[in-house]
Amino acid sequence: MALIVQKYGGSSVANIERIENVANKVMEFRKRGDQVVVVLSAMSGETNRLIDLAKAIQQQPDPRELDMLLATGEQATVALLAMALKKRGQDARSYTGAQVRILTDNAYNKARIVNIDNGGMQGDLAVGRVVVVAGFQGVDEQGNITTLGRGGSDTTAVALAAALKADECQIYTDVDGVYTTDPRVVPEARRLDRITFEEMLELASLGSKVLQIRAVEFAGKYNVPLRVLSSMQDGPGTLISYEDVEMEDALISGIAFNRDEAQITVQGVPDQPGIAARILGPIGDANIEVDMILQNTSTDGSTADFTFTVQRNDYDKALALLEKHAGEMGAREVKGETRIAKLSLVGVGMRSHAGIASTMFSALAKEGINIRMISTSEIKISVVIDEKYLELGVRTLHSAFNLDQAPAA
Amino acid sequence: MALIVQKYGGSSVANIERIENVANKVMEFRKRGDQVVVVLSAMSGETNRLIDLAKAIQQQPDPRELDMLLATGEQATVALLAMALKKRGQDARSYTGAQVRILTDNAYNKARIVNIDNGGMQGDLAVGRVVVVAGFQGVDEQGNITTLGRGGSDTTAVALAAALKADECQIYTDVDGVYTTDPRVVPEARRLDRITFEEMLELASLGSKVLQIRAVEFAGKYNVPLRVLSSMQDGPGTLISYEDVEMEDALISGIAFNRDEAQITVQGVPDQPGIAARILGPIGDANIEVDMILQNTSTDGSTADFTFTVQRNDYDKALALLEKHAGEMGAREVKGETRIAKLSLVGVGMRSHAGIASTMFSALAKEGINIRMISTSEIKISVVIDEKYLELGVRTLHSAFNLDQAPAA
Repeated sequence: MALIVQKYGGSSVANIERIENVANKVMEFRKRGDQVVVVLSAMSGETNRLIDLAKAIQQQPDPRELDMLLATGEQATVALLAMALKKRGQDARSYTGAQVRILTDNAYNKARIVNIDNGGMQGDLAVGRVVVVAGFQGVDEQGNITTLGRGGSDTTAVALAAALKADECQIYTDVDGVYTTDPRVVPEARRLDRITFEEMLELASLGSKVLQIRAVEFAGKYNVPLRVLSSMQDGPGTLISYEDVEMEDALISGIAFNRDEAQITVQGVPDQPGIAARILGPIGDANIEVDMILQNTSTDGSTADFTFTVQRNDYDKALALLEKHAGEMGAREVKGETRIAKLSLVGVGMRSHAGIASTMFSALAKEGINIRMISTSEIKISVVIDEKYLELGVRTLHSAFNLDQAPAA
Repeated sequence: MALIVQKYGGSSVANIERIENVANKVMEFRKRGDQVVVVLSAMSGETNRLIDLAKAIQQQPDPRELDMLLATGEQATVALLAMALKKRGQDARSYTGAQVRILTDNAYNKARIVNIDNGGMQGDLAVGRVVVVAGFQGVDEQGNITTLGRGGSDTTAVALAAALKADECQIYTDVDGVYTTDPRVVPEARRLDRITFEEMLELASLGSKVLQIRAVEFAGKYNVPLRVLSSMQDGPGTLISYEDVEMEDALISGIAFNRDEAQITVQGVPDQPGIAARILGPIGDANIEVDMILQNTSTDGSTADFTFTVQRNDYDKALALLEKHAGEMGAREVKGETRIAKLSLVGVGMRSHAGIASTMFSALAKEGINIRMISTSEIKISVVIDEKYLELGVRTLHSAFNLDQAPAA
């Protein structure tokens, strides 16, 4: 008997038939004697429908009211699943985020979970009830409804698993696990049986859209074993946990990529202390997230070029801000490029193996792919390249590191 | 400056354009300096859409989960209206029933309001905010979401008006007031400027679908002046309040009717004390509401016929129950008839005027309409007739009591 938290995404609850499927899946675990907490997203399309309603009123609707509106989507699905479980003779209760209560800060549209009261859920589980919780939402200290932002249901599931000290948090989705890279780009991409939190974090943040990054962070922080698996077909999925002795001895786990970035270069700024802060200050103030950052000093040492990447939909705003501040920063020119892509090799094996970077760079060079920026971390090497070379780059690296073949155990 | 509670029904918030209209209407009152609390229903059709989803899972869905599901409808509209007000520069906040908090008992699907915490609303009103509250819903002591049943948004509005000691509770609907009878049956039907709570109670309970009966009871109990008016066109509507000297000196205010009843007769039961209780006991236990009740003793005095009416959709259940118990009650036979209708004359003027009943009965007799049951109260006379005569009966009485002409002031 285990305590399992399961999360089903919007496509898994898209209509009544699929909700009945989820109920059947939950029943399998109940029959095994497991205690089950289910976290649901809104029916696929519902959140967009609600956003469209709000935008029909105002392009930038009031954030508090938008959360009030969006929270209805998950509230509907949890009630429907609880009904489907009751029909199967399984006692069940649905809860909103506020009812649980999932306490968040008051940053509407992207709130962070502060605390979860697990008392009520423990009581339900103890009497054999399935607890069905609305994902993506919470409540602030003042009782206002908040949402965690897109993909927030994953975070809800992991946070509940942590609060309940669950044995496993299962994220059901429309793919059957985490792959070495996107199979649409590389047909030979292989499902990974296991992967570490750190690797998953790098893969998630770099564009593998399987799991929300905050959920993985949460799972790592509270050591909640996380499993990604398909709600449509049976299979073991991919287990995300801490590195252990049984782990595959892989150099590289996967290749992530991201087209959703744009590059901005501030040229010829005086090479003085504090210049990076002066450039990035207005960007941060405008709530624009910066990803890669690079600073080159000119040969004479008096000026520097400062390059960074932002999300593509922040590009215009960031560029306008910098052009406005270019004068006071003493910059010669502000330039930008949107047709770029980021490509990253990820693997805990890098820690103990040299030569990964040179293999990567020479493989790309052999195909004539120019590297615009490089950034490295302990378990990741990222490069920015021209967008047109993205697919070629991914296939080249997938093959160069033999990712289509399972490594020796 | 007045404190006004306004309630808009589903057709008034059916789409974004209508929600914008409601926002404009609210702004008119704000510009006059009034404090405004708005209560909304779900977009018309939304509650039925949600019920259909639930019924696709189970014909009788779990009551708790049904309320959880249905409560999303109003939550969406209040958020949208608050956005529309914010767009107009009017500070506003939407609240669910649970947030307000509208405390109810735990009778899911037909909960009753027990208490309202007006503290938060007072604070909002004091700083010039419009408070937008989801109608139809509340929360029980345990934090479960409850709904008040169909039409419950009217009750929410009146209860909020009572809790806030509002100057007026305005119910906006798709008709411009309360009429002497249904204009679809009698084209000459006339809008009433004023009517008493008692008259409105009789009219509402008898089938004039303008206002929910519980809302009128509430308004009467707490002496909240209630105004029914159109959200689509300007006009004074109908004010519902206690009788006062300015009141129209009308004999009859209106004619209500109801097709939604069925008649059941238990024939030949022993005429003993307690027999009525023994017949109606199982009916009440099954939560079936009984409307009119009639008992005739047979000429020899040893047996009695017991006749009553129930809602038509309770008819099969009630009949089956009585047939099951007929033996132990010593009844000779249980008979029923669904093709009946109830027709009622309502007016506080009856109190001080004799002869109303005889005028009524002779007018019906002149048209060959047979009366199956009669029931009277201080301000109402109801008859049950064959359904096929309903329209004729309403027109006959409307004309017999000159209801198409405004009475002398």
